Amino acid sequence: MPHKPPLGPQTRLCMSLAARPGIFGTRFHNYLYERLGLDFVYKAFTTTDLPAAIGGVRALGIRGCAISMPFKEQVIPLLDGLEDSAAAIDSVNTIVNDDGRLTGYNTDYTAIVQSLDDAGVSPAMPFLLRGSGGMAKAVAAALRHRGHQQGSIIARNAAAGQALAGLYGFDWHPDLTGRTAPLLINVTPLGMAGPDADVLAFPSALIAAAEVVFDVVALPVETPLVVAARQAGKRCISGAEVAVLQAVEQFALYTGVRPSAELMAEAAAHARQG
Amino acid sequence: MPHKPPLGPQTRLCMSLAARPGIFGTRFHNYLYERLGLDFVYKAFTTTDLPAAIGGVRALGIRGCAISMPFKEQVIPLLDGLEDSAAAIDSVNTIVNDDGRLTGYNTDYTAIVQSLDDAGVSPAMPFLLRGSGGMAKAVAAALRHRGHQQGSIIARNAAAGQALAGLYGFDWHPDLTGRTAPLLINVTPLGMAGPDADVLAFPSALIAAAEVVFDVVALPVETPLVVAARQAGKRCISGAEVAVLQAVEQFALYTGVRPSAELMAEAAAHARQG
Repeated sequence: MPHKPPLGPQTRLCMSLAARPGIFGTRFHNYLYERLGLDFVYKAFTTTDLPAAIGGVRALGIRGCAISMPFKEQVIPLLDGLEDSAAAIDSVNTIVNDDGRLTGYNTDYTAIVQSLDDAGVSPAMPFLLRGSGGMAKAVAAALRHRGHQQGSIIARNAAAGQALAGLYGFDWHPDLTGRTAPLLINVTPLGMAGPDADVLAFPSALIAAAEVVFDVVALPVETPLVVAARQAGKRCISGAEVAVLQAVEQFALYTGVRPSAELMAEAAAHARQG
Repeated sequence: MPHKPPLGPQTRLCMSLAARPGIFGTRFHNYLYERLGLDFVYKAFTTTDLPAAIGGVRALGIRGCAISMPFKEQVIPLLDGLEDSAAAIDSVNTIVNDDGRLTGYNTDYTAIVQSLDDAGVSPAMPFLLRGSGGMAKAVAAALRHRGHQQGSIIARNAAAGQALAGLYGFDWHPDLTGRTAPLLINVTPLGMAGPDADVLAFPSALIAAAEVVFDVVALPVETPLVVAARQAGKRCISGAEVAVLQAVEQFALYTGVRPSAELMAEAAAHARQG
């Protein structure tokens, strides 16, 4: 196992900015630094002054910064450029600092495209996508990017649903009544740990009629939807997998090192124990 | 031994800003965090944009920041207030961040006063002080603060020497010719590792006639002046002791915890191995 050098002036800091910082990123990145012997350290922050915080990232030579809610759009005018993944959805979840030049990426978008590719989802496959928030936009953009032409955004919020559908040339419907599709995607909090933990985002009949089920909810690792889809023998993409893929993308952008699938899984398991 | 928690969102960052960051602070503070089980981490930084760096300290809730050359005066207008130690010499080497309010301290000044007190130096004792830079100002101010009235600043640079002497009501002389005093203080690089490593800041005859010898040079731990003074049986204050005392003051300001003398010595020994 490579030896991680002790902290010193040459150590690079990577960080995160969120209204309510979680523990996953800190444990994930620091575990990989340790295992790969990289001279980095990772620390989660919050702020009430985003421009000054980003100015600090630049001035202190902080190598990378993960951006969470509610800063993903606000941060854009503070950066020096956007890479395609962030430009595609006008949303940044990752900043890379190259000698004071800050570039915004969106590794959620990249990870969603990669997950759909890895699951062998055909671009010819029509979809139903529940949700209309920032992550729904990332998924809709990823589907469009992959060449999907037939699909419906399902969202009770008509304004948000229609806007999202219109942006990428998909349909909008307020609910699932009479809908079915081979690709089902949940981007709502349904099934997430909390008040809606037991709610199935799609009814069993739709699951039975589907080929691939994608739940963007990352906690719990196995949502009721993912459990039901697996039991019905469907191909599944879980939010937990996407969360790990996006973290690995960040890790690779910051360090230039791409961990093996085995080490990645190990780091994710370690991070989830936090 | 108390258990230091793993890095997480609640971990406090302390840091340093210097044109050329050293290793001492990082090793000293992180060693004490580990031994005392404190949920802190310390990291050294440099910057080419001091206002943005200090804005980042405030916006990211970085708990404390050590300030080195060349930022000690420049940083003052960026802070919300100065504590007496910094106000006394218009120089800040330590920032404490209390919920976004930044206060400047000078723990070099505090440590110099404390070292003179600990060595039992009487305020009635006349002194010769070689040097006229920022650290000489800290020493002169500390002497004045302790009530010293008779003393000479010895500096070849007439403008700087006279200005410093005038500021605190002491004499100025360009060299040591015909001078002697019970308290000898070196604040020049003479004896410091480098081109002047072998130079004795005061001649043997002056050392023999003195009671207390204070060398502000911290590296090597035992300068030629300190070695000569000890051999002549004089009370000594070394720059290495002052450096540790000032670091402990910073540590106490940041964490609220004051380590024992034993642990302090252990941390200093560990830090010097870096």
